[in-house]
Amino acid sequence: MSQDPLVVFTPSGKRGRFPKGTPVLTAARQLGVDLDSVCGGRGICSKCQITPSYGEFSKHGVTVHQDALSEWNAVEERYDQKRGLKPGRRLGCQAQVMGDVVIDVPPESQVHRQVVRKAASARVIEMDPATRLYFVEVDEPDMHEPTGDLERLERALSREWDIPAIRADQSLLSKLQPVLRKGKFQVTVALHKSHTDDVARLIEIWPGLHEDGLYGLAIDLGSTTIAAHLTDLDTGEVKASSGIMNPQIRFGEDLMSRVSYSMMNPGGDREMTSAVREAIDTLAGEIAKEAGIDPHLIVETVFVCNPVMHHLLLGIDPVELGQAPFALATSDSISMPARELDLTTINPRARTYILPCIAGHVGADAAAVALSEEPGKSEDLVLIVDVGTNAEILLGDRARVLACSSPTGPAFEGAQISSGQRAAPGAIETIRIDPVTKEPRFRVIGCDKWSDEDGFDAETAASGITGICGSGIIEAVAEMRIAGLVDESGLIGSAEATGTPRSVPEGRTHAYLIHDATADGGPRITVTQGDIRAIQLAKSALYAGARLLMDERGVDKVDRVVLAGAFGAHISPLHAMVLGMIPDVPLDKVTSAGNAAGTGARIALCNVAARTEIERVVGQISKVETAIEPKFQEHFVAANAIPHKTDPFPELGRIVTLPHVSFNTGAGGDGDGEDGGRRRRRRRA
Amino acid sequence: MSQDPLVVFTPSGKRGRFPKGTPVLTAARQLGVDLDSVCGGRGICSKCQITPSYGEFSKHGVTVHQDALSEWNAVEERYDQKRGLKPGRRLGCQAQVMGDVVIDVPPESQVHRQVVRKAASARVIEMDPATRLYFVEVDEPDMHEPTGDLERLERALSREWDIPAIRADQSLLSKLQPVLRKGKFQVTVALHKSHTDDVARLIEIWPGLHEDGLYGLAIDLGSTTIAAHLTDLDTGEVKASSGIMNPQIRFGEDLMSRVSYSMMNPGGDREMTSAVREAIDTLAGEIAKEAGIDPHLIVETVFVCNPVMHHLLLGIDPVELGQAPFALATSDSISMPARELDLTTINPRARTYILPCIAGHVGADAAAVALSEEPGKSEDLVLIVDVGTNAEILLGDRARVLACSSPTGPAFEGAQISSGQRAAPGAIETIRIDPVTKEPRFRVIGCDKWSDEDGFDAETAASGITGICGSGIIEAVAEMRIAGLVDESGLIGSAEATGTPRSVPEGRTHAYLIHDATADGGPRITVTQGDIRAIQLAKSALYAGARLLMDERGVDKVDRVVLAGAFGAHISPLHAMVLGMIPDVPLDKVTSAGNAAGTGARIALCNVAARTEIERVVGQISKVETAIEPKFQEHFVAANAIPHKTDPFPELGRIVTLPHVSFNTGAGGDGDGEDGGRRRRRRRA
Repeated sequence: MSQDPLVVFTPSGKRGRFPKGTPVLTAARQLGVDLDSVCGGRGICSKCQITPSYGEFSKHGVTVHQDALSEWNAVEERYDQKRGLKPGRRLGCQAQVMGDVVIDVPPESQVHRQVVRKAASARVIEMDPATRLYFVEVDEPDMHEPTGDLERLERALSREWDIPAIRADQSLLSKLQPVLRKGKFQVTVALHKSHTDDVARLIEIWPGLHEDGLYGLAIDLGSTTIAAHLTDLDTGEVKASSGIMNPQIRFGEDLMSRVSYSMMNPGGDREMTSAVREAIDTLAGEIAKEAGIDPHLIVETVFVCNPVMHHLLLGIDPVELGQAPFALATSDSISMPARELDLTTINPRARTYILPCIAGHVGADAAAVALSEEPGKSEDLVLIVDVGTNAEILLGDRARVLACSSPTGPAFEGAQISSGQRAAPGAIETIRIDPVTKEPRFRVIGCDKWSDEDGFDAETAASGITGICGSGIIEAVAEMRIAGLVDESGLIGSAEATGTPRSVPEGRTHAYLIHDATADGGPRITVTQGDIRAIQLAKSALYAGARLLMDERGVDKVDRVVLAGAFGAHISPLHAMVLGMIPDVPLDKVTSAGNAAGTGARIALCNVAARTEIERVVGQISKVETAIEPKFQEHFVAANAIPHKTDPFPELGRIVTLPHVSFNTGAGGDGDGEDGGRRRRRRRA
Repeated sequence: MSQDPLVVFTPSGKRGRFPKGTPVLTAARQLGVDLDSVCGGRGICSKCQITPSYGEFSKHGVTVHQDALSEWNAVEERYDQKRGLKPGRRLGCQAQVMGDVVIDVPPESQVHRQVVRKAASARVIEMDPATRLYFVEVDEPDMHEPTGDLERLERALSREWDIPAIRADQSLLSKLQPVLRKGKFQVTVALHKSHTDDVARLIEIWPGLHEDGLYGLAIDLGSTTIAAHLTDLDTGEVKASSGIMNPQIRFGEDLMSRVSYSMMNPGGDREMTSAVREAIDTLAGEIAKEAGIDPHLIVETVFVCNPVMHHLLLGIDPVELGQAPFALATSDSISMPARELDLTTINPRARTYILPCIAGHVGADAAAVALSEEPGKSEDLVLIVDVGTNAEILLGDRARVLACSSPTGPAFEGAQISSGQRAAPGAIETIRIDPVTKEPRFRVIGCDKWSDEDGFDAETAASGITGICGSGIIEAVAEMRIAGLVDESGLIGSAEATGTPRSVPEGRTHAYLIHDATADGGPRITVTQGDIRAIQLAKSALYAGARLLMDERGVDKVDRVVLAGAFGAHISPLHAMVLGMIPDVPLDKVTSAGNAAGTGARIALCNVAARTEIERVVGQISKVETAIEPKFQEHFVAANAIPHKTDPFPELGRIVTLPHVSFNTGAGGDGDGEDGGRRRRRRRA
C-alpha cells in the first residue's frame, strides 16, 4: 500500500491518514479527537487508554488486521503488571499506527466525557472543569540562565501544554521548590483556568504523577439547610452528598427575620456570616471524611443561594435587600479564593464560584435552576417553580425568559400550620379523603402502608403519627376541597353542612380531624380554618407570581410546569392543581425537576463553559419585581379561591369535578383585606 | 472674527481652536494636554486649576484680551470662598474659552507632574502611580433594572472615566452599599490599575469627594536595616522616612547565617518570615503616625531587597539560595495583595509590588539600582557598585548591561574589624596620616572639627572616640598605604621599618595606633594586620566582581564609576581607588548615587510604567555568576595587593604616588590559600 494507514476513531467518527509509527494519541490530537492525557504521552498516567477493533468494518470501509497497531511495548507491559490494563486496552501514547485501524475511545478516556444527570431525562453534563491536572517536566535550574523555579515551570507548561501564563499564590511559592526537587523536576500541577480571562492559577503541585484525583463541592446554601455534593472533577461522579441545618436559623427562621436581626443588632450580619462560613467549613471537612478523600484535594466550590444568603456568605450586610428598591451589593457572578470565605479545611488555594443573582429577590439559586432546566432552550412555554419559603419562578421558551420571586411564606414546608412539621418519620405525607364517607386514609414518612392497611399501626408504632409535612398539607387541603369539606372560598363546612363528625368546631370556625392519637399520648392532627388560610396565602402568592410573568409574556396559559426544589419533588401535581398553586395544564405536563438549584451548581462545577453560559442567560432574563407590580395584588386576591376565582381550570376539570359547595355563613373572617395585610407583613419571609 | 478662538497651552505648547463656551478642561483633554481632574469637571476637586495669561504673545502669535475666558461663575466663587484660589488661577472645568487665550498649566495641576529626585542630578520621576482617585456619580438602584451596586459603579466608571472593568475584593463589597448611600451615590474610588493586565482593582471607596490623598510606601528591605519612605502618590513628595533594624538579625548577622539558621532549624524560615513581616507592619504604622496620616490611606507598597530577604518576605524557605545552583523560587516581579504579607496596619486592600530578581545572588535591590541609575541608557560605560555586605555590581551602557554580586563580607561596614563599629557619634569616619611624621588626624561622626583642631576634645567629650566606621577603615588603610606604613602586599611595617612608634607589635604582626583613650577609660583604636587582611578580602571580592564583568564585556577599563548604597555615599573616591576597591578612572568620574535601591523603589512606586520598564530591562541584563566563574578566583587573588598586583592604576598615579615599600619578613601568614579559604567560608555573607 502506498497510502498511509487510515485511522478511524469511534464514537466520534473522526478519521485521517497517518504515517506508520504515529502514536495513537498523536493521531487523536491532530484530528481533535477527545482523548485524555495528563502526563503528555509519557506512558505513566494511563488516561489515554483506547480499544482497537479488528476485522471488517464495512461501515467505515476498513479492514483491520491483527498487526494494525505496534506490539505491546515495555511501557505497556510495565503498566499492565503494575496496575493492570483491561483486556483489549492499549495505551494511546504507546501504541503506534501500523495499518488501517478502528479505535474506540472509551468514555473514561474522554476529557469531555458526558455524565448522565438523571436516568429519566437522559440529560448530561459534559465534563470540562475549570481545574485540571497537568504533568510536566521542568528544566533544572541553571546558574548561567538564572530564572526562578516558577518561571521554568511556567515555561514547561507553555511548551508542553500551551498554557500561556500562570499565576501563583505566595502560599504555593513556599512549597514549590521542595516539591520540584522531590519529584526530580517532574511534577503534576492543578491549574484553574478562569472563564473570564486567560489567567491560569496554580492551585496545587505534587511531585511526580498525582493519581489521587481532584474534587469539587457544589453547595446549595439555603435559608434552612446547606447541602453539599462532593464531586469528582475527572468523572463528574458525586462521591458523597451531605446536608446540615443552616446555623443562621438561630438568628431568625426566615430571610426577613435575618435581615431584621441585622438591622436591629449592630454586627449582627457579621455574626451570621461567621456562623454560616463555619458551618460550610465543617460540612466540607465532614463530607471529605465521609468519602475518604483528603480535603486538600477539594480545589473548587460552587455556591447557589438566594440573595440574602449570598450577601451573608460574602460578608455583606443584607439590610438593603429588606427594603425597596432591594438593591444587591453585587449581582454578577463572583470568582474568588475560597479561603476568603474562611473555608480552611479544603485546599488553601481552592477557588470559589458563585452564580450570578438575577435580581434583589431572585438569586443565584434561581440562576442555577435556569442553568439546570434551561427554559431558554425550551420549544414550548415552560413555567418552572422552585417552591420554598420564597418561590423562584421562571417562565420562558426560546424567545424569552422571565423571572420573579414570590413570598409564599413557610406554609408549604409545614410551618405556621397547626399540625405542621418538617418532613420526618411520623409525618403525614400523603392523604386521601373518601368523597362519600369523608373518612381520611393516609401514609406517613417511614412506612409504605396506608393507614387503613393491616400492619400500619405496628409499623408506625415507633415513630408515632406526629403531624403533617408540606406535601401532606397540600394534599389534605386539596382532598378536603375535592370531598366537599371546603368550599371555593376556603371555608370549612360544619358537621351539619358536610355530614361528617370529623368536622369539629374551633371557636367560630371548623377544623377537619385527620387523626386523634391523644388516647395514646399523641397529638390530635387536624386541618384548621387557619391552616387553610395559610395555604391559601401561600398558593395565591405562588400563582400570582406565575400569573404576573404570564401577563408580561402576554399569555394566559403555559404548555408545561416544572416543580423544582427539594420540596417540589414531593408535591402531587394533581393536588397542586386542585389547590390552584400552579396554572392549569394537562396533568402529564407537570414534572418534577428535583433539586434543580443543586443540579445547576453541579453543572457549573463540572463545566466551566456553563459559567459563561449562565452569565449570558442571566443577562437576558427579564426580571419582574412582584413587590412593585400593582397587578400582583389583584392576581393574589383572585387566586385566593380554590382553585381560582376567575381563571378556568379546564384541564383539571377533565380529571376531577370539584363540588359546588358554599359554607359562607358570614362568620370566619375571610375578608380579602385581612389576607392582604397578613401577606404584606410576611413579605420576603 | 469668523474663526473659533485659539487656545494655546503652556508649557506643552499644544494649541487648537475651540467653539466659544468650551470649558478649558474640555479643550485640554481634546488636545491631550496633561491637566488633572478627579471629579470629572464638576468643579469640586480643584485639581484642574489653570492660569490664563493676558496681553501680546508674539511667540504664539496671539493677543489675549481680558475677556478671553468667561467670567468667574458661582462654582468658582464658592470654591474661592471655601478654599481660596491663588491669584490669577481659574478652575479649568468652569472657565470657558471666549477668545484667543494662552493658558498655563501649573505643575501641581498636571497628572504626570515631574518630581525632582535630587537637586544635583536634576533627574526627575514622572508621576504616574498605579493607584489613583476617581470621583463618580453612580446611578441609583432601580427595581426595574435590578443590577447590583457594584455593577452600577462599574458602569459609571466606564462611562465617566473609560475604565472597562473593575475587580472588587469581598472586604470592599461589605462597605460598598453604606458608602454609596452616605455619599448619595456620589463617591470617590481609589483604583489600582495593573501594569501587566487590564484589571482595575477597587482599593477603597469614600462618600463624596475624597480630599485626604493617597500614599505609598517604598521599602528597602535590607539584611541589616529596613528603610521605608512614605510617599504622596499625588505629588511624589516624601512625607516621612523611617528605618528600623531588621529583627532577623537575631537569627544571624548576615544572609548566609540566616540561610543556615533555616537549614538547621525546621520552621526557622517561618520564624524569620514572621519577624520581618511584623517589623514592616510596625514600621508602616509608625511612619504613618509620624507623618500624621491615616494608615488606611497607604494603598501601595513597593519592595526592593536581596534574594534571601525576598524569599523570606514571601514566606519561601531560602535554603536553595545557600547552595549551587542558587535557584530562586521565583525571579519575576510580584504583584499581590499587601495583606498576604501580613501588612495589617495599612489599607486592607493595599497592593504590593516587588521588583524582579536578576539572579540567585542579584536581587530586586540590584534591579532597583538599575531602575534608578539606568546603566542601559548610559552613553559611556558605567560601573555601578552597590556596596554592602554583599556587593551588587552592574556594568553597562546602551549596548549591554551585565550584573553580578560579590561576597564582600561585612568589613566595609566596620564589622570583623578590631576597632570597627557602626556609623554612630564617636566613630572615626575620616582620617589623614602625615606621610612624613606618620601622625594621624581624624574626624568623628557628630563633630565637624579635625582631631588636631582646637575644641575637638571638648566637642567629642560626650560621645567619646569609640571606634572606626566603614568609611573610616577604608580611609585608614588607604592612608596607611599612602604613608608607607603598609606595603603593596598589605603588610604593616614595624616601628623600625616605618620609623614611627605608632606601629606597635601584635603577636607576630604589627598594628597602627590611631588613638589611645585607655587613660580616660576609652578604647585603644588601632588598625591591625587582621583588619588589613579583612579589608583586602572585601575589596578583592568587589574588584574581582567588577573585573569579571569587564572581562565579559571585553574591556579593561570603564568610563565612570557610581558608588551606590547608603554606605557608598560616604566612601572617599580617592581612598577607594588607593585601596583598589574600584577600577582606575579619573577621580571626577567617581560619583555617589546615594541609596539608589531606595530611589528605585520610589520610582516604581510613583510610576507604574517604570515597573514594565524594569521588568524589560532585567530580562535583558546578562547575569554573571561569580561563584562558578573560574576566573573570579584568579581576579580575586590578583586584587589582593593594594591597589593591585598586575592592573595598572594610571589615573590614580596622576594624583598620588604610592611608596615602594616592602615589609615581607616571611612572617604574617598572608598566604593566598588561606585568604581564599576564608573567603569561601564567608560566601554570600
